[in-house]
Order: sequence, then C-alpha cells, then structure tokens
Amino acid sequence: MKFDLDQNILAQISGPEDLRELSPDQLPLLASQLREFIIDIVSTKEGHLGASLGVVELTIALHYIFNTPEDRLVWDVGHQAYGHKILTGRKEIFNTNRQLGGISGFPKRTESVFDHFGTGHSSTSISAILGMALAAKLRGEKERDHIAVIGDASIASGMAFEGLNHAGVTDANVLIVLNDNAIGIDPSVGALKKYLTNVKKGTAKDENIFECLNFNYIGPVDGHDLQALLAALGRLKEIKGPRLLHIITTKGKGLQKAEENQVAYHAPGKFDKETGKILKSGRSDLPPKYQDVFGHTIVELAWENKKIIGITPAMPTGSSLKYMMEEIPDRAFDVGIAEQHAVTLAAGMATEGLIPFCNIYSTFLQRAYDQLIHDVALQNLPVIFCLDRAGIVGQDGPTHHGVFDLAYLRCIPNLVIFSPMNEMELRDMMYTAQTGLDRPLAIRYPRGRGVNLNWRNSFNKIAIGSSEELRKGEGVAILSIGHIGNTVKEVIEELDNEQNPGHYNMRFVKPLDEKQLHYIFDRYKHIITVEDGCKTGGFGSAVLEFAATHNYKNNIEVYGIPDHFVEHGQVSELHQRAGIDPESLKNAITKTRYANP
Amino acid sequence: MKFDLDQNILAQISGPEDLRELSPDQLPLLASQLREFIIDIVSTKEGHLGASLGVVELTIALHYIFNTPEDRLVWDVGHQAYGHKILTGRKEIFNTNRQLGGISGFPKRTESVFDHFGTGHSSTSISAILGMALAAKLRGEKERDHIAVIGDASIASGMAFEGLNHAGVTDANVLIVLNDNAIGIDPSVGALKKYLTNVKKGTAKDENIFECLNFNYIGPVDGHDLQALLAALGRLKEIKGPRLLHIITTKGKGLQKAEENQVAYHAPGKFDKETGKILKSGRSDLPPKYQDVFGHTIVELAWENKKIIGITPAMPTGSSLKYMMEEIPDRAFDVGIAEQHAVTLAAGMATEGLIPFCNIYSTFLQRAYDQLIHDVALQNLPVIFCLDRAGIVGQDGPTHHGVFDLAYLRCIPNLVIFSPMNEMELRDMMYTAQTGLDRPLAIRYPRGRGVNLNWRNSFNKIAIGSSEELRKGEGVAILSIGHIGNTVKEVIEELDNEQNPGHYNMRFVKPLDEKQLHYIFDRYKHIITVEDGCKTGGFGSAVLEFAATHNYKNNIEVYGIPDHFVEHGQVSELHQRAGIDPESLKNAITKTRYANP
Repeated sequence: MKFDLDQNILAQISGPEDLRELSPDQLPLLASQLREFIIDIVSTKEGHLGASLGVVELTIALHYIFNTPEDRLVWDVGHQAYGHKILTGRKEIFNTNRQLGGISGFPKRTESVFDHFGTGHSSTSISAILGMALAAKLRGEKERDHIAVIGDASIASGMAFEGLNHAGVTDANVLIVLNDNAIGIDPSVGALKKYLTNVKKGTAKDENIFECLNFNYIGPVDGHDLQALLAALGRLKEIKGPRLLHIITTKGKGLQKAEENQVAYHAPGKFDKETGKILKSGRSDLPPKYQDVFGHTIVELAWENKKIIGITPAMPTGSSLKYMMEEIPDRAFDVGIAEQHAVTLAAGMATEGLIPFCNIYSTFLQRAYDQLIHDVALQNLPVIFCLDRAGIVGQDGPTHHGVFDLAYLRCIPNLVIFSPMNEMELRDMMYTAQTGLDRPLAIRYPRGRGVNLNWRNSFNKIAIGSSEELRKGEGVAILSIGHIGNTVKEVIEELDNEQNPGHYNMRFVKPLDEKQLHYIFDRYKHIITVEDGCKTGGFGSAVLEFAATHNYKNNIEVYGIPDHFVEHGQVSELHQRAGIDPESLKNAITKTRYANP
Repeated sequence: MKFDLDQNILAQISGPEDLRELSPDQLPLLASQLREFIIDIVSTKEGHLGASLGVVELTIALHYIFNTPEDRLVWDVGHQAYGHKILTGRKEIFNTNRQLGGISGFPKRTESVFDHFGTGHSSTSISAILGMALAAKLRGEKERDHIAVIGDASIASGMAFEGLNHAGVTDANVLIVLNDNAIGIDPSVGALKKYLTNVKKGTAKDENIFECLNFNYIGPVDGHDLQALLAALGRLKEIKGPRLLHIITTKGKGLQKAEENQVAYHAPGKFDKETGKILKSGRSDLPPKYQDVFGHTIVELAWENKKIIGITPAMPTGSSLKYMMEEIPDRAFDVGIAEQHAVTLAAGMATEGLIPFCNIYSTFLQRAYDQLIHDVALQNLPVIFCLDRAGIVGQDGPTHHGVFDLAYLRCIPNLVIFSPMNEMELRDMMYTAQTGLDRPLAIRYPRGRGVNLNWRNSFNKIAIGSSEELRKGEGVAILSIGHIGNTVKEVIEELDNEQNPGHYNMRFVKPLDEKQLHYIFDRYKHIITVEDGCKTGGFGSAVLEFAATHNYKNNIEVYGIPDHFVEHGQVSELHQRAGIDPESLKNAITKTRYANP
C-alpha cells in the first residue's frame, strides 16, 4: 500500500494490515491524528474519553508489532478500546458509538474479529487471554501470541490475581500489558498501587512482585514514547511464556483539561474539542440524581450517627460517596475494584456494631454474590447495600444493566429488598436502616434523576414490608416497584374515564406486604406487576408465588425485562423494547377492559 | 487455677483463661492430649481431620498469647477449628459435631463468643478481620488485636488478595497467620505456591511478596514448634499494624497415615484411631456416586473428543475430575481456589472452539456469578457447568448447601439448566453437550449416590428442553426436577389404589418443556412441583410463570426448601424439615383428593 503522506494518514487506514506498512517514524503522526479523531467524535457524541486517549500509542504499537487478529488481544474493561475500534475497521461507524443499533462502547465479539473477548466489567482479561493461550498450546500453535491490556486499578482486583497466579505456572504465550496510569475511574488505591509507585520511583527492592509470580517482567516504559514501546514489544515478542510489560501512561493524554482533571474527563459528556471545556446544560430546575440523594443523605445521617460507615468499591464519584469521603474521611472507604472484599469487610464491621452502607452498582454486586449470601445473610448481619444503577442503565449496555438483582437477591433468606419510588423514599429508608435493623437490607435505585425538586424532607421511618396505596381503583390493580412507579402514575393520569385502575407502590420485594396483597387480590380481578428488572424470578414472580401459596385465581400479568440480554441505547428506547414504556403500560391497562372474565 | 498434672490437662481446661495459666513448657503435653482428643472423636463421629491436626500447636499458642475473645480470631474456611472449639468451651459437646442439633463443623457466631466470624467458604478471613480491626481503630481501641488464620491454598484466592491489598495501606492491627502446609483439600497449585516454596527453601530474592504489599513479615517458622510459635507471636503482639506470620505445618500431623495420605485424611470418615486405618463399609452393591459418574464419563468422552477440557477450582478429588487429570493431564486443569478465574478461563477457551466442562460445587458457583453472566452467558459461549453438590449436602451445613442455584441461574438469558434424575441422564447430557451446543449449559446434580448399579449406558442425545412422562395419571401431576424425582417415584409406588397421580421428570428448568406443560395443565387440575432447592424463584416459580403467561388457573403447589438457611444434619433429616421427604410428599399428593374443586 502507498500512503499519501500529504493527506491524513488515519483516513487511509482501514485495518492493522495498512498500519503495518507505515514506517516506525510515521507512527507518531498517526497517533496525533488518532487522538484528534477520538476527541472530535467524543466531544459531540459523548462516551469514555480519558482512557482511550491514554493508550493511543500503545494501541498503535500493539497492532503494529503483533499480527492481529491472528494474535489475540483483549482489552480489560474496554473503556480504552476506542482507538482499537477505529484502527480495526470501525472508523466510519465510530460516530454511532453507544447509540441504539450503533457500535458498542466496549469490545464485543459479534462486532469485529478483532474483538477477541467482550469486556465491560473489570479484571477478566487475564483469565480470558490465558484460556486462549492454553487453547493454542493444545493445538500446537507455538508462535501465536496472546495479549491482555489491563490497568493498575483493574489488576488489583482479586480475579486478576487469580489469573496471574495460574498463568505464572504455565508456559502459555501470554503477554500482560500493565497500563499504569494510577487511576481507574477514580484514583487507584491499595497496597499494590503504592508498591507500583515505588517501582516507578526505583525504590522497590530487588525482586519484582510479578517476577515472584513467575512472569518475565519488563518496565517501566514510557507508554507515550512510541519508539520505546516498539522496542519493548519487539523484545517481548521474541520471548515466549508469561510476560508482563509495565508501561506508564497519562489518562487523558493530549487534551490538557482531560490530563488535569482525569475524573471529570473519564466520560465528560459533550465538550468543546478545542478548549476541552465541558458543556453543561445549565438547567437548575431538574430533580436531583438518586446518586446525589444517596451521597448527601449518608453525610447527613453520618454526622448524627457515629456508627455509620460508607464503603465503595472504586466508585466514589459514580456513587457520590465522595461527599462522605471528603467530609468524614475516616469513616468512608474506597477499597478499589474489590466488591468481594467490600462486602465481607462490611460484614466484619457489622459484627462490631458498626452500620456499614455498602454502595455497589447492581451489576457489580454480581461479583460479591457469594459474600452477600455466605458472610452477610447467613450470619444475618445488618449490612445495608445501596444498589446503584439498578434497572436499565442505557448506553453502557448489556455488561452494565442492573436487571438481574431482584431475581438473584430474592432467593436469599434474611435479606430485606427495598426499592424507593422517589428521593424521599430513598432518604427515609436510609434513615430507617441506620436506626438499627436486625438483618441485612438491599436498597435498589436507578441511574439518573428522581422526580422531586424539593427532596430534602425530614426523615420518617418506613415500616419493613409496608406498601402504599397510591390510587384505589376497580377491576385492575397495578403493582409497581421502585422508580418506574412514576411512569405508571403518569400513564394512569392520562387514561380516559372508562379506566379506573388501582395503583400500589409496593416498595418491598421482600418481605412482600402480604396484608395489602390479600386486599388487592380480593378487590381486583386483574393484577399487573411492573418492574425495571428481569421478569424471570423477579418481583412479578414473587407476586405469583404469593398468589399460588394462597390459591388466588386472579389474572396476573408480569411486565419487566424479557429473558434476553438488553442492548445499549437510551433508557427510554430500551424501556420501549422491553415493553415497560408508557405506551406499553397504557396498552396493558387498557386491554384488561376486554379481557375474559 | 491449680492443675493436677498427673491427670489429663485438657480435661481440666474449660477455656483459654485456664490455658493461659499453664507454663510454656507444659503446652507440648497439652498439644499431644488435644491431638489425641480430636483423633478419638473424629475416628468414630467422622468430620474433618487433617486440617485440625495440623494447627494444634498454633491453636494453643494463639489462645495462650492473645487475649481471646477480646482479641478477635477468625479461622479461614474453618476446617481447622476443631482444636479451637475444644479449647473454647465445647469439649463436652464436641461429639455432637456436624449432627443435627449439635455443634457446627465450622466456626459459627451463634455458637460461641470465641467464634468471631462464621466461615466455610475460603478466603473471607482477611476482609472480615480487617473490618473488625478498622472498627476497633474508629473506637480508639488501639491495643486490641485481630488475627486471621489462613492456609496457603486459600490465600491464593482473589478475595484474599483484595483483603491484603486494602489492609496493607491501613494501620489497622491485623495479624495474618499464613498456615503453609502446601495443601488445601488437594495439593496447592499456582505461582504463589511455587513462590512460597522458594521462600521456604531460602531461594526467593530480597523482598518478600507480602512486604511488597506493606506487611511486616516474619517467617517461615516451624508451626509444630510451640516455643518458636510463642516467641514469634510474642514479638508480633508488640508490633502494631498489618503483620504476616508465615508458619510451616504438616496437615494431619501426629497421625502417621494422615500425614502420608493428606487427601484421604482431609475428611476420612470412620477410622481406627490406633492404626489410622480407614474403615470402609465394604459394600460393592451400591450405585455409584454422581461424582464418579461425572469423573469417569468425562474421561470416556474426552478420549473421543479432543476438544473437551476439564476444569476444577481446587476440587479434583471431590469432583472426581482427578480421573481425567491422571489420564489426560494436559487437558484437565486444577486452577486452585479461583472460581472466578475458572469460569472466565473456560470462556476464553470456548472462544477458541474448545469444549470446557467447568466442574464447580453449586455453593461455590456463587463466587463466579458475575463471570457466568458477563463472560459466558452474555457472549453465549458454550461452556458446560457441572454443578456438583447441588441441593442439600448434609453435615457441612448452611455454608455448603447448594440450594440457591436454580433461582440465581434461572434469570440468566441464554443459559440452559438441566438436572439429571439418574446416572444415565447425567451421562447422556454430558454426551449431548460435547456434540456442540450453541449456548452455555448448567448440569446440576447432588452429592452422593445415584440409583443404578448398571450405569454405564451407551450414550443417547437428550433434546434440549425435553421432559419425560414417567407415569400418566389423573387429577394431580407431580413435576419433579433432578434426583429427587426418585423419591417421588417411590412415593407414588406406595400409594393406595384411590390415587392415580401423573409423574413428569421435567429435566430442564430452562428452557421448560412448554409442550408437555400445556398437556399437563390441560389434563390435570392439581399440579405439584418438587425440587431440592429453594422455593423462592426456583423451578416451581418457573412453572408459576408459565401458568401466568398462559392464564392457566390450575392449583399449583410448590415443594422445595423454604425461605431460610438450612442447618447441618443428615440429608434425610434436612429433607424432612424442608418438607420434601417421602412422607411429606405422600401427604401432598393425598390431600389433593380432598381439595376444593
């Protein structure tokens, strides 16, 4: 291939095979063009910025030195894979990133042969790449290489250690590239991070921790110096077996504001591509985010109750626990990407009479499921789980939707499961929880805004297992759980006069308000349950179990997420596809009018 | 307290406060008496032997040096806590160990103030003890100490690393005692184990891996040398902050056969306390264990199909994957206590066209729940999960019962869930799976024996989602899933002539055999579902969802484990308590005769 070097090089590259025809000294120019391309698109289309800017040189160097897709390449988490996507045939459709029907914000196997493993959750890459490398070994493919790129925050998670511990005793061709930028979404924490800092400063002693685990270690290397990267990767390519390349990069590299404020520019929303300035909507008349209601409320409660502890596994900003970390730092813990540890740490604290609020995204609690069952619920310890980003989360897509929690939590004995319909219910339940429950509690709320501008109510206790009759009706009762109850409420307000549905904000998935349910099943012929979660085994299923136990024969219809993984897109678009948007719910109510008796 | 040293010292000790009145030179005698006591009881009452014999000296030294229960002490896993139990007031009831109503085989908070944290699953102790230590720090209790005892197999699990990584950046008073005996239930594996061997041999380089993580490291110390232990612990008691004591012990110490065959003597059943010889029943007319059916069948299939891989996280003996590890070692992997890694490793292999059978105990799959959802099911990779010890497992109790799996698996899209009623169905499904499924599969089977002496059938394919009509009846249909269907069959055979129930072996919890279900719901008025798993969200719930979807109004009764944690005891006793024993099921069928129309 001939390049017209007077024109944009990136525009002439349709895949890594083109890239490999450039000379090494042309690569820095390509890097700056790739960086510019990413900034261009993300500034208007939104998405994850800082991580991809930090690995522009690494991305180019990997595809230049290694023979992808024959050599396997896995990007841990995948926030940093935009450059990879652009260089591997998705440049023209990169502007559809994270949109419904567009490309995913994460590597995805069905999207490209260059995406060898789908990622999203942290720390899976070492295990995945080792599986591929062992497969090559079994097939006698001795030359094929297998590369995982993983950040310093992700490599500190337990699962990554398990992968290293196994890889180190194999002779599989795995190359772990440790992309050390001292930050995940928030700054990295922990003893390993501290140790890596010593390595960088040259103050660590003789044997490297990775060498202890039997890896061939090279580093640290400046991850923005393309020639140094090419040299290091070239050397590593000639060595076989488990290898680790430690590179130092700057998250947000190349956009000054992103380098200076790495947390804000992780996913900055729209910004001015020249100045880097983030464009805010400027509206002040919107209800608060549930995240901020949590963040401010825990501070408010913690000043009054010295037993309250806040715990987040690496999401101080996302969860808004940062407010407590700033104001009451000795009682607010960011434990890093360590959900398992976070939950059992909370259990340990609860045995000593503390009241831990453990804030974990719904999708990430899947990582600590055993700890929740075995360490918390079995011992009936009053740990309070605040499950953020429950339900459909939108553009992050199937790796991040928090749609399984009601189903996987409901089978756990002792656990109370609550979902607030609005900001005040979240506050009241947090208040209730810290007055001293005798068992564990999960409070589930969605990503995004509530419904009330004036949300700083004075606190009221909520009785465990109590629901609320929002509207007494006839014929059909809608039983909703959580924030989606507001959609139900709006739908009911828009119905014509022939419809007179009842509406119940059930609040607790467990224990159910059985008294209210008996009343509902006696009064209404048709029951509709609505949840922003999977239908299989979820809240609706709990109502079915109640009905079967008491031999009720009412018609029950369950509305929720059908039994398949939900793609990425706007929340409203995805709710529509799942049949829990206003229109679908309206139809659900309306058609009961014509239902058989 | 005055001791009569002509009498047994152990008999005179009712708690650690007595122990502390002995002089250091009297402790070795106590150690030998404690060892004898453990051997005495376990030889007739059964239980875990080797682990507790290995820490007799450590147990005495810890209670001698530290001020338990004021100082906190957590035993990781807890197999090794028999000596601890005997020295902390449970000597007289130790003969009730693991029996219904007796003491637990694991540390348990409700059993003793000396059991600061319930354990059972591996690698929780560091997180738990850190939680307690941080609580002490917040309360200004600077002197209190916090000790976790963890084995070398358990410390290699990811969760333990997460705990170390956090503890290392605190100034909390935690002392981790690494009990290095180079074995878990089976011999330890992995790079860390290899490294620890180098440390023991003195061939490791300058800085210790634990020192890298900011721990004050002492070791290795001979864990059977009481004076050395006392000296080391005494020194460590004077230091504060995160410390790690590395001791070397021999599992099974003091019983020659147990030292020589550590795997068999992990939990040897009854044995001759003098010779150590294991007493076998000698019966050869019993059906095989499901474990052995799995173990022999995977070997049989793997010789024919080169793509088959076997994976176990640290349970080669328990799962019987050991047969494949012996016969086809390059395709059978023991990855250590690393369920998360095991699952994603399998996913990586599946992307390369291999067919991994990932054998994990039902209760331990809880550790890899996210990996199952995010890495396997979301990518629709055909990994085959063999879920061993599903349902009630008996004397290991609530930490180990595999009763939640059907509920927590059922909500996962793409996943097929199968449970064999007997050995042949297990074999046939394993056979079917390796012919090339297009999606992941979970095969769930219980601990213990099947029902057929002649189980080595020739293979037949089982259609996904197909059930079996075992008996056509009238009025009432029993829908059973898995091995418990044999109980249902027996019950039906013993009914009087007035009863004529139908019986359906449903086999698949997902996808359900909807054609069969329509037939059943049309034909029978009463439906009874039976499962050895939790009622909440389980198989019965799936049938309720089917009925609601299709608006069937049959009477449906769900039999399974009620919504509380199940204690320890014989499986038959626990089934009775749960209402899924023959008598309860017989009553369930009989009473439908009198049910309202």
